[in-house]
Amino acid sequence: MNMRTENGSLGRLLSPNGVAIIGASDNPGRIGGQPVAFLSKQGYQGRIYPVNPKYQTVQGLPCFARVGDIDGPADLAVVALPAHAVPQALREAGAAGIPFAVVLSGGFRESGEDGDRLQIELVKAARESGIRVIGPNCQGVVNLHDQMFASFGAINEEPNLRRGPVSMVFQSGGLGFSVLLLCEMLGIGFHHAISIGNQADITTSEVLNGFLDDPDTKIAVAQIEGLSDGRDLMAIGRRAAELGKHLVIWKIGNTEAGARAASSHTANLTGRYDIYRAAFRQAGILEVTSVEEMADLFAALQGDRLPRGRGVAAMGISGGAGILFTDRAVTGGLDMVELSDQTRARLTEILPSFGSAENPVDITANVFNDISQFDDALNVVLADPGVDQLALLLASLPGERARLAAEAIIKAADRHDKPVMLAWSARRERAAEAYAMLEEARIPIAPHPVRTADCMATVARHVSRQAHLAGRPLFPDSAAPAVQSAGTEPRDHGTLDERRSKELMARYGIPVPKEIVLTGEDVGNEALADLRFPVVAKVLSADITHKSDIGGVKLNLQSADEVRQAVVDIRKAVAERCPDAQLEGILVAEMVHGDAELLVGALNDPTFGPVVAVGMGGIFTEVLRDITFRVAPFDADTAREMLEELRGYEIFHGVRGRPALDVEAVVRILVDVSRFAWDYRDTLVELDLNPVLVGARGQGAIAVDAVVGFQAES
Amino acid sequence: MNMRTENGSLGRLLSPNGVAIIGASDNPGRIGGQPVAFLSKQGYQGRIYPVNPKYQTVQGLPCFARVGDIDGPADLAVVALPAHAVPQALREAGAAGIPFAVVLSGGFRESGEDGDRLQIELVKAARESGIRVIGPNCQGVVNLHDQMFASFGAINEEPNLRRGPVSMVFQSGGLGFSVLLLCEMLGIGFHHAISIGNQADITTSEVLNGFLDDPDTKIAVAQIEGLSDGRDLMAIGRRAAELGKHLVIWKIGNTEAGARAASSHTANLTGRYDIYRAAFRQAGILEVTSVEEMADLFAALQGDRLPRGRGVAAMGISGGAGILFTDRAVTGGLDMVELSDQTRARLTEILPSFGSAENPVDITANVFNDISQFDDALNVVLADPGVDQLALLLASLPGERARLAAEAIIKAADRHDKPVMLAWSARRERAAEAYAMLEEARIPIAPHPVRTADCMATVARHVSRQAHLAGRPLFPDSAAPAVQSAGTEPRDHGTLDERRSKELMARYGIPVPKEIVLTGEDVGNEALADLRFPVVAKVLSADITHKSDIGGVKLNLQSADEVRQAVVDIRKAVAERCPDAQLEGILVAEMVHGDAELLVGALNDPTFGPVVAVGMGGIFTEVLRDITFRVAPFDADTAREMLEELRGYEIFHGVRGRPALDVEAVVRILVDVSRFAWDYRDTLVELDLNPVLVGARGQGAIAVDAVVGFQAES
Repeated sequence: MNMRTENGSLGRLLSPNGVAIIGASDNPGRIGGQPVAFLSKQGYQGRIYPVNPKYQTVQGLPCFARVGDIDGPADLAVVALPAHAVPQALREAGAAGIPFAVVLSGGFRESGEDGDRLQIELVKAARESGIRVIGPNCQGVVNLHDQMFASFGAINEEPNLRRGPVSMVFQSGGLGFSVLLLCEMLGIGFHHAISIGNQADITTSEVLNGFLDDPDTKIAVAQIEGLSDGRDLMAIGRRAAELGKHLVIWKIGNTEAGARAASSHTANLTGRYDIYRAAFRQAGILEVTSVEEMADLFAALQGDRLPRGRGVAAMGISGGAGILFTDRAVTGGLDMVELSDQTRARLTEILPSFGSAENPVDITANVFNDISQFDDALNVVLADPGVDQLALLLASLPGERARLAAEAIIKAADRHDKPVMLAWSARRERAAEAYAMLEEARIPIAPHPVRTADCMATVARHVSRQAHLAGRPLFPDSAAPAVQSAGTEPRDHGTLDERRSKELMARYGIPVPKEIVLTGEDVGNEALADLRFPVVAKVLSADITHKSDIGGVKLNLQSADEVRQAVVDIRKAVAERCPDAQLEGILVAEMVHGDAELLVGALNDPTFGPVVAVGMGGIFTEVLRDITFRVAPFDADTAREMLEELRGYEIFHGVRGRPALDVEAVVRILVDVSRFAWDYRDTLVELDLNPVLVGARGQGAIAVDAVVGFQAES
Repeated sequence: MNMRTENGSLGRLLSPNGVAIIGASDNPGRIGGQPVAFLSKQGYQGRIYPVNPKYQTVQGLPCFARVGDIDGPADLAVVALPAHAVPQALREAGAAGIPFAVVLSGGFRESGEDGDRLQIELVKAARESGIRVIGPNCQGVVNLHDQMFASFGAINEEPNLRRGPVSMVFQSGGLGFSVLLLCEMLGIGFHHAISIGNQADITTSEVLNGFLDDPDTKIAVAQIEGLSDGRDLMAIGRRAAELGKHLVIWKIGNTEAGARAASSHTANLTGRYDIYRAAFRQAGILEVTSVEEMADLFAALQGDRLPRGRGVAAMGISGGAGILFTDRAVTGGLDMVELSDQTRARLTEILPSFGSAENPVDITANVFNDISQFDDALNVVLADPGVDQLALLLASLPGERARLAAEAIIKAADRHDKPVMLAWSARRERAAEAYAMLEEARIPIAPHPVRTADCMATVARHVSRQAHLAGRPLFPDSAAPAVQSAGTEPRDHGTLDERRSKELMARYGIPVPKEIVLTGEDVGNEALADLRFPVVAKVLSADITHKSDIGGVKLNLQSADEVRQAVVDIRKAVAERCPDAQLEGILVAEMVHGDAELLVGALNDPTFGPVVAVGMGGIFTEVLRDITFRVAPFDADTAREMLEELRGYEIFHGVRGRPALDVEAVVRILVDVSRFAWDYRDTLVELDLNPVLVGARGQGAIAVDAVVGFQAES
């Protein structure tokens, strides 16, 4: 269903020349009446074609009996018919040469088996007639630059919505449009808004690509419950960055209860939130989780100035605001820079004696009595080489002083080409001119220092992330089909036993202990000649998973005699406790030691495919669930990043009396596991290396146990 | 300086009958001119007395040469004079019988040594003349119910600010007033607002008590950088609860950088944030960290309905909003209840077929076509016994439908007496009537489901916290001076050695290993007769802190011979590596084992006095800083709560193969340590029990090492 179209191929959907409303109603309150009413009322400049065999005119416009009768250009058909009539309507619209339809009607996959069948019919009708479809079960498509409202609901009634460089697609129309309206009230202008509904044909990812093709869209946003094509989304994230644009995602349905609610809602795939977040990070996608956060980021990202580093200065008229800003800024990873001696000396000259020339700079409200003081202070701080961006904490400064301040800020921001963001909350009616000037100049404003600091910190992290990713492929070359070497061998299905799992790991260069398999009961010394004592003996059987629990593991064997005794004991234990298990032998391995214990795993995620996980072993995993993920395959930098994200990462540096660990050896294992998981993506179910023992720096790391699970033979 | 006044004694400050402005200016823009101008303009009903020997009239009002000349009632003097003239002005105002002053002038403690001296003079003048003082270095005092603006800055120019049951005090005037104005724009009404400045006389705590005395204040709020009287604040928290009111604190200056900024600002005490947060929790104080969060909580708490439990239902017109709400609600600790069979059956009858009768309930936008459906759905869900509160997710529902919905909501909330909160963001001008009705009925509204869920979750946690604390003293009886038994003994100063530290712990009932001290070099068997092998030998010297590092500890000694050898070795090591240390002997203790390692400590915090800390030992403390605090003394419930807050708490339950631990033994140690810390509060510096070994349930816990530090002999 995910038929990828050419770049730019959604252009006629996004900016249609002519809109047909199939199932048009004379009643402007009904779903089939709303688009007719509001396309006219909102000032859409293209032609509007009501289609309904029952009427001659609809809401004063000439009405067409059939879509084929339309006598002018029509790029978009809005379908507002009972579900059962939709497939036929799409065939007719397709036959009439209309390239896109948006199906507002519900009664499809979201409403049970009959609806599911209807949705399959709908897709078939679309494919066969060549029409591309948004929906069904959606609230429509809006283009604010064209005042094009092919939609129903509260959004239609909003006059004069702000236009801007943000385009948004969302799975839930009610939530999506209300979030859009809230952002609008917070000062954000939009271009396109698309309620994507059931995604029977056109998907969220395809729409996002369409947004990126739009030269007037700088920020593409999606609110999603789940996706079927996670890697597409990641690629769009990288594409956005290459175009100098931003991809922002708000993922909902992230808790068990939330995911349950999501499935009762539209039966969309909601996946493991941790993996989504890892994928966002891997692809430079900005994640948001609330409306204010989103609006502030849009305000900051729609301008052309981005910070070059993490250094921030704050200048304000309230000491408390400076403290609050500082708390949040450093918590978010910004560096409250120490201003240079020169900067401080100049500030001391400029400011009243009761101000402060230290960062956060307290300029005092007095500087607005002589705006040149404010101007000077601004320029001095922005000129400081350590300052990558500047926060202006202006409390609720109103009226003429606000206007003068706005003027000075716009001038200074232009001159220094560094981002400036305000924490300012004057009532709009008390500072209308200042707001208008600052918004025109795209100087972002949040109402208080908490939001200003959070936003500036997120932007700085985003910029540094993008710089880190720039010029590197989303996945390393090994991911290209041509380089794939190790195909799944015929015998590899179901769960492999420890020995075969380890053999497979060893083929990928992952260190495993030296070991042999004793198949018989007699153990000659020569069989053990290559092993160094002490050794461990373990039962080898794909049927026995918890080996220790049944007495199937004997540790720390110091001699051949001890091994012989262990073999007898294990065979006896198996015979008694797992009489039906197929015993493949006894595995005897050299004991290895490490200074820390990790677990490394891989799984096959329905949204992202093969994914690698790593966690600190023992308590960290069991109690703290300290695990990080990355979508496979990946390179060493990415693997290193996974480790750094672990809460217990400090252990790698060697804490109190423990040695620093061999980070690079673990990195190699992670990269190799990611290559393995990618190569076997068609059949892999899961991989567990538990534990992986890590030695001190230079001492390596080794997978002491391994279980690979492939799909069962089909 | 913290002269506690009688309850209600701030009444004349908060609602003054007559305000004198000392240093009144004819220029309404100047600090001495603003209160004159805005008291008049804002409609203050009491008399206004400009005082300034230079004028006959000020801004059209008769002006008095001296404060003694005032010819009517004056409860408050606003002082706007150069710093050096303030003490004398206070003396005169006090002599004239004015009970309160607010000193707007800066140039005191915040501005260096000269200012510090002036502040001491100011306090002396106030004490001697009997006048109580707010400030100096503040922006004034406002009472919105009386339109009383004894203040300067942007706040004065705000017409028709909403009145309500919230009163707020803040250290930073600029930040405080702008936060107040923001909350006001978000729909919150205030009563009193006080910029407390340097707190030379009246403190934040005293003001908060004054707010609680005010029958029209339901929510008392403070924005603080730091406090000198932490336990006062805790007591006010409990007092608020007893009065059915709420105490809300926003603490800033919580990071190292933020605290540095705070000290350059007003030199206020900013303390360890973790301890503040523990104290808030202990006293049922609500902490907030942002403006929107604060405003939403005020809206929810100012009504009279509070949830009886954690069960929540959501009802909305957008599936996505339900998912989003659910995610946040369960993350915040709410329980998305399963509706009863009866409720679901009734909902299925009421709702359109494409709605959902499961929680979150999707009522669909169609129910507003026949408002009785909405009405019925509301009543059915609110009647469900599992539902403690209800979220209504109404997107941006505008106009007449919003009005009808508001009517139904108000009726239903009244009938069922359960909290109802909206997520709703219609533009005000598109639903003015609905907003007015809902605000009048004190139905809280947040603009989107994230904030609604967060707020409802916080309220539910707060209510359950208050229920838990209700009827219990803030500190257990042992805190009453009469019950104090163990006074500091004359010899207890400086750092005690391990043996004396342990003896002191043992007197408080804290288990320590059985041990003896060998003072000589000869060790007879009889000296060791009472000990069970294996034992450990450790050097005993207050001069040696890192005993192991110098070879001063010998573990796992199995016989008297091994002990003798250890004594020789340790003495030799000390002689070589610490020749100057005063050796008090060798401590020989039975080795003890535990299934987990904790550390327990106590410290003497400048704000809260004796505080107890507990953390999981080893990696948890070193890498994760997994430590919780409580202000001493406390009871077993509080101690249990400390442990439950640890991220590693699950270990106490016994994870994979480990036994469940003896929680109650640790609880007893914590309670005993808290009693010890309280008893020695005058001289205690710190206590370290590290490690405390904890056995399996029923096996106890024991402090293996102990160091008590008292203040050095003075």
